[in-house]
Amino acid sequence: MSGIWGNKFKISIFGESHGAAIGVTIDGLPSGLKINLNNIENEMERRAPGRNSISTSRKESDKFEIISGFFNGYTTGTPLTAIIRNNDKKSKDYLMLSHVMRPSHGDYSGFLKYNGFNDYRGGGHFSGRITAPIVLAGAIAKEILRNKGIEIVSRIKSIKNISDEEIDICNPPMDKLLLLKNKGLAVLNDENASLMKEEILNAKKQGDSVGGVIQCIINGLSGGVGEPFFDSLESTIAHLAFSVPAVKGIEFGRGFDITKFNGSQINDEYYYDGEVVKASSNNNGGIVGGITNGMPISFNVAIKPTASILKEQNTVDIKEKINTKLAIEGRHDPCIVQRAIPVIEAISAIAIAELI
Amino acid sequence: MSGIWGNKFKISIFGESHGAAIGVTIDGLPSGLKINLNNIENEMERRAPGRNSISTSRKESDKFEIISGFFNGYTTGTPLTAIIRNNDKKSKDYLMLSHVMRPSHGDYSGFLKYNGFNDYRGGGHFSGRITAPIVLAGAIAKEILRNKGIEIVSRIKSIKNISDEEIDICNPPMDKLLLLKNKGLAVLNDENASLMKEEILNAKKQGDSVGGVIQCIINGLSGGVGEPFFDSLESTIAHLAFSVPAVKGIEFGRGFDITKFNGSQINDEYYYDGEVVKASSNNNGGIVGGITNGMPISFNVAIKPTASILKEQNTVDIKEKINTKLAIEGRHDPCIVQRAIPVIEAISAIAIAELI
Amino acid sequence: MSGIWGNKFKISIFGESHGAAIGVTIDGLPSGLKINLNNIENEMERRAPGRNSISTSRKESDKFEIISGFFNGYTTGTPLTAIIRNNDKKSKDYLMLSHVMRPSHGDYSGFLKYNGFNDYRGGGHFSGRITAPIVLAGAIAKEILRNKGIEIVSRIKSIKNISDEEIDICNPPMDKLLLLKNKGLAVLNDENASLMKEEILNAKKQGDSVGGVIQCIINGLSGGVGEPFFDSLESTIAHLAFSVPAVKGIEFGRGFDITKFNGSQINDEYYYDGEVVKASSNNNGGIVGGITNGMPISFNVAIKPTASILKEQNTVDIKEKINTKLAIEGRHDPCIVQRAIPVIEAISAIAIAELI
Amino acid sequence: MSGIWGNKFKISIFGESHGAAIGVTIDGLPSGLKINLNNIENEMERRAPGRNSISTSRKESDKFEIISGFFNGYTTGTPLTAIIRNNDKKSKDYLMLSHVMRPSHGDYSGFLKYNGFNDYRGGGHFSGRITAPIVLAGAIAKEILRNKGIEIVSRIKSIKNISDEEIDICNPPMDKLLLLKNKGLAVLNDENASLMKEEILNAKKQGDSVGGVIQCIINGLSGGVGEPFFDSLESTIAHLAFSVPAVKGIEFGRGFDITKFNGSQINDEYYYDGEVVKASSNNNGGIVGGITNGMPISFNVAIKPTASILKEQNTVDIKEKINTKLAIEGRHDPCIVQRAIPVIEAISAIAIAELI
Repeated sequence: MSGIWGNKFKISIFGESHGAAIGVTIDGLPSGLKINLNNIENEMERRAPGRNSISTSRKESDKFEIISGFFNGYTTGTPLTAIIRNNDKKSKDYLMLSHVMRPSHGDYSGFLKYNGFNDYRGGGHFSGRITAPIVLAGAIAKEILRNKGIEIVSRIKSIKNISDEEIDICNPPMDKLLLLKNKGLAVLNDENASLMKEEILNAKKQGDSVGGVIQCIINGLSGGVGEPFFDSLESTIAHLAFSVPAVKGIEFGRGFDITKFNGSQINDEYYYDGEVVKASSNNNGGIVGGITNGMPISFNVAIKPTASILKEQNTVDIKEKINTKLAIEGRHDPCIVQRAIPVIEAISAIAIAELI
Repeated sequence: MSGIWGNKFKISIFGESHGAAIGVTIDGLPSGLKINLNNIENEMERRAPGRNSISTSRKESDKFEIISGFFNGYTTGTPLTAIIRNNDKKSKDYLMLSHVMRPSHGDYSGFLKYNGFNDYRGGGHFSGRITAPIVLAGAIAKEILRNKGIEIVSRIKSIKNISDEEIDICNPPMDKLLLLKNKGLAVLNDENASLMKEEILNAKKQGDSVGGVIQCIINGLSGGVGEPFFDSLESTIAHLAFSVPAVKGIEFGRGFDITKFNGSQINDEYYYDGEVVKASSNNNGGIVGGITNGMPISFNVAIKPTASILKEQNTVDIKEKINTKLAIEGRHDPCIVQRAIPVIEAISAIAIAELI
Repeated sequence: MSGIWGNKFKISIFGESHGAAIGVTIDGLPSGLKINLNNIENEMERRAPGRNSISTSRKESDKFEIISGFFNGYTTGTPLTAIIRNNDKKSKDYLMLSHVMRPSHGDYSGFLKYNGFNDYRGGGHFSGRITAPIVLAGAIAKEILRNKGIEIVSRIKSIKNISDEEIDICNPPMDKLLLLKNKGLAVLNDENASLMKEEILNAKKQGDSVGGVIQCIINGLSGGVGEPFFDSLESTIAHLAFSVPAVKGIEFGRGFDITKFNGSQINDEYYYDGEVVKASSNNNGGIVGGITNGMPISFNVAIKPTASILKEQNTVDIKEKINTKLAIEGRHDPCIVQRAIPVIEAISAIAIAELI
Repeated sequence: MSGIWGNKFKISIFGESHGAAIGVTIDGLPSGLKINLNNIENEMERRAPGRNSISTSRKESDKFEIISGFFNGYTTGTPLTAIIRNNDKKSKDYLMLSHVMRPSHGDYSGFLKYNGFNDYRGGGHFSGRITAPIVLAGAIAKEILRNKGIEIVSRIKSIKNISDEEIDICNPPMDKLLLLKNKGLAVLNDENASLMKEEILNAKKQGDSVGGVIQCIINGLSGGVGEPFFDSLESTIAHLAFSVPAVKGIEFGRGFDITKFNGSQINDEYYYDGEVVKASSNNNGGIVGGITNGMPISFNVAIKPTASILKEQNTVDIKEKINTKLAIEGRHDPCIVQRAIPVIEAISAIAIAELI
């Protein structure tokens, strides 16, 4: 596959940043699912650019049109397709970029793959903009999960070297985490948020960028979900996560940190809480043997610093076949971690909709 | 899917640890691929248990039989199936484990998924033993890659808190890395190796276990490989990596560490090395926009401490519905990092065979 | 799957007859494929309704817009999506049909499947109109095949009891068959064409309908194409053919007729024609063991009489739960065989693009 | 795909006629499905060769071994694999056939596809023998269907020009049809059976072969089954049917015959039978719009005369590159229609297990 993913909750994604439109088809939806368009709009708005000082000034309304599979407020059970027209595009910004390769961008690897036929304008199909349809599909997946009492929340765990406080992933503070949806930066501690904002604005001032780590919590998911050998919940989430541009790492539960402990220190011991089996720690992040054990799911995702920066960098011009220098003008986020949050939630919702 | 993976290099895996046999079918192989059975045997031997003091004493010959798709030394182009009979199994070790759940094992999550019908003996389908057919399929994938000049090597990057020396992932020391195949622990620096061995034997003595991090390097892979949006090389490798029991994290290039830097510090700048485009750093691990850029691939995988330990742990008995204590006797590895190395190489080889 | 098909030439189809739009995404196209939009328009025009006296009077321009994957006249290698807006729809014609089930239509079976949430207007997703995106995808597949010297032609073999002349499927008269694209009815013999037209107009006059058989010839396809065990060329074509509404049978080569002969009479004997292996008969229609043998492909498809007729029929009203009678007013083809021809060619082109 | 099929009831098939073994993996089975091994044995026995005078004298016990996914009489929910060792193989019969191409066999098309690396012995992967694992998988699918009250029966509709009596496919005579499992030829009318047997033995005597038509009835399947646009029940059954060697046509309900009627004559009108919606005719064979409407399913399959015949035929020797003559000695069925019956039932059971 490539632009198509899934067996049960199938998505087919399409579009280029500066083409006519981007969009997604969802195939395999049940019929009769009530969809509140406001919920979709809200999710789209969370990802949309141009919302505040730490984001790009490209203003996309990300207005979507559902053109099939939706009738009288309910899904029909046939493929649901939504498209988002591209409006505020300034393609002339990008003419030079068809042959001057931006470092750490998909330009050069994409050039090799597509033999120079890819739409280079605005990153084309590799633009972060293509995550808008992912958020849309995720919003619909969330409607399915909501009906089953499953909730997904995410937060910024760190920006550069500034970390937010740790949370208890046996009993995640859902109330607090849900409130983060309304904050400029999804950070629990306001002081940490200020420091992070400062770091981002500082990078912006210098024509530079920063990255960070997102933690995602899935609450209310019952045990027994996951399809080993190959389609464990971890494999499914990771597969989708690495489709998101800028993701360079993923870890479940304690992740890489788990390797620093002895088994006896880090194994999650079970006990009966009344009739219910629980674990007294959740270092595996709620997934053992690829299958959920009923504890909350927790995973972290590493988002690299935005590749496009104003600061001059060395690179190559593949038309002239010479070394050159590049300062990327355009409108770019100094940090995309905040805008990546609804995307990470979306891929989580899609992964679970695929497996439950 | 679940036991079936892939579109081009398709694998279908089956078997339980204490059933009659385990095995794999590879579908989509080209016809006329010469296969040297010794190469497969060598790979199987690298993973096999009972090879030294830091491994389980279960002695499996892991002798395989190819029963289809192979004729006169060459693949036929039709499905190739290999089976490995299970011999040295002591199922009585496991009778109690049908209802006393091992912490951090797939027992309880598997019980929830399969309603108690799963084969609990020796971990059944969730046993690390099921990685033997993965290694076999990987050995065949490696034959394909070898013909294209692609080489995969791995090493132990750390065991618990002991790390081996860093390597240059722009120019990985392939000669040294290839020699690791013959060492008891695949560690570059012998002093580090001794410290790691000590750590492992110490855990063993205490009936405990340790984990670690594996680094995998893929050299010789040309640029342009990967199928975004969804089937990036990162997604494909990560999907398979999280199928391997005990993997809790994966990161490409600098991974989580990349979030600690500014874009200007960490972007991989391109330059012309004669006619060839290279990057002066490789913080993205050779994959940008989900597609290879011609630099070596590097990724790290976190392997958790072996879940089965002799030390007594708290857990539940789901038959009696009571809290209980468990000391897992049986024969278990105090550390499976070394034995996981050929498995991680195998899934890398399979991922690339799928995408090239 | 359902609205998504294929592994190499993947198509994802969407839309309802009276929704906002119908369309298709093609995933897996090579980059750099030159596409002549006129060729697509011509294929669309062949299928479009309202072209002559034997067709429905619904006038759809079937104007498509390619919204992704196409840049400066060439495919980019990323998903290509095209949409066709629905214009001349008269939904009021259909209000009653949400509960009065049209005999031999998908109304009742669709009601059972979608629990009444399907878009009943104009047949919704089950309308023959959904074949328009299939024709579009087929037109693009044909561009790929044309570059390889593969040609697909079809003709009406029979309408009701009137058959056209037989052709030699060892050496199909390609020149004559290609000319059929310009005729009102794709029939070789003009006298037969007149009789068929008379039969169709006669049915129309009586508010009735007729069906027929289409023969499809694929010329220039080399031997060795097909992926047994499961994805034989026959399986692949048949799978897609039965997606087309109104298809009730398919047969390759002599098909059902082959059962009337002895093996010695009907086996296709090979001989050398210079250096080239040929068969002296082609009763297997160019496919043996699921793989092409280099002879032209020939298959027949049975198209049932249009289910929608003006003549009064017995049926049920599922809202009132009573027996009732129905005369379907609306605008319907008395015979869709002619309009089904480009659809059958399209699915053939798609099947081959998938397997070569 | 190729040897792998399905999304829900996935099968992965492998093996060559004269290799070590043939077999199948079923992936996606529910856990806790009770399987009666006798039922499987009975189905295998129906297909097995050497059972009477009208069959080949090759005697295969078709003894299977389930090596995974089955524990204490129940499915575990993990992949179930069964293998059948090849015993009574006389490969020397086939040595010459590596270069002398049997007319109407997969030899030559397979040679082109696999560049001469395929296992030519006994037809290799293209042998009818590979249908044994299909029957095995079908027997397990039947266990699932039986629990839901779905029954599949088949009969010989015709051998060469001799037809059996017509049956009412609105109310198929299930009692009579079920008894056919115990007859030498699955024919309702004994006189017709005698004539057919005579025809077969006559062909055998002359070193020739005959084909025929199988009718398959599926009773008890509820309405609403099928996944258009692409995975209609017709598409799913047809896909699998054309995987079976020797199938050259398939038609649902009245099939090709339906084209001889007017819509008003052939549409299936609905009526209320008490609370239940039924159709007063079943010319669509229980499938409308690709979805079941609650009526019994009926479809016909054309089986060509056995390609291997003793009678001398013209063909080519691709090693010598000359025209030659061939009389196929070996042990071959003069007619495989009877032995194909359990195979057609098996693919029907698999198709339904995939879609329900």
